[in-house]
Amino acid sequence: MDEVAATRQVATAYVNDLERRDWSGLAVLLADDVVYEMPQTRERIRGKARFLQFNSEYPGDWHLRARRVVADGQLAAVWLDVRVGAEHQDACVWLELSEHGLISRIVDYWPEPYEPPAGREHLVERW
Amino acid sequence: MDEVAATRQVATAYVNDLERRDWSGLAVLLADDVVYEMPQTRERIRGKARFLQFNSEYPGDWHLRARRVVADGQLAAVWLDVRVGAEHQDACVWLELSEHGLISRIVDYWPEPYEPPAGREHLVERW
Repeated sequence: MDEVAATRQVATAYVNDLERRDWSGLAVLLADDVVYEMPQTRERIRGKARFLQFNSEYPGDWHLRARRVVADGQLAAVWLDVRVGAEHQDACVWLELSEHGLISRIVDYWPEPYEPPAGREHLVERW
Repeated sequence: MDEVAATRQVATAYVNDLERRDWSGLAVLLADDVVYEMPQTRERIRGKARFLQFNSEYPGDWHLRARRVVADGQLAAVWLDVRVGAEHQDACVWLELSEHGLISRIVDYWPEPYEPPAGREHLVERW
């Protein structure tokens, strides 16, 4: 398997292991010194143990589905469809792999809905 | 040039042409029936002409820099650093290319800062 295929496989497994709450499967994908960042809240979690704890403690019956996985060398981007009951939100995840093919950095964005600014109604349609 | 290199080049040129307000350069990259979507506001713009107008009319002295370009087949993801004066926001952009190598779909996310929920202070550091 070439590097891109391996990166794509790790990114896909990352989503699937989270969805299945397969913490031991997830642990295998992560570098010990993985860094997880949420730039919107300026939060950072360092290390595999804390990151696994963060996910296992995360409240709510959340479910993830990858809308798109884009892999390029040791980088990947994952566009997620996230649902908690009837609530839905998309997320954008940026993964960086180490030279050993382990996830060494994760950057998560959780874009929330907002009202569009005025002045572009002549160009857009709403759904 | 292989498909991935071509996709990466188009994604990079997309950012650079926007930054330079090079509308004719940007027009060359776009399929005539390009679809631009902003899921957070549920807004959609159809067609090259409207999309170019949207960008040329977009208010503010905005500046874009690609933090990361991830290309995979006819898909790309671009992580943008966007600045307007002293204000900064990141954006996540998903590009889809046609079989002719033109950008046929653009999905933009504009994640805004928010306060972190309580309950994970024992795992995170702030920056």
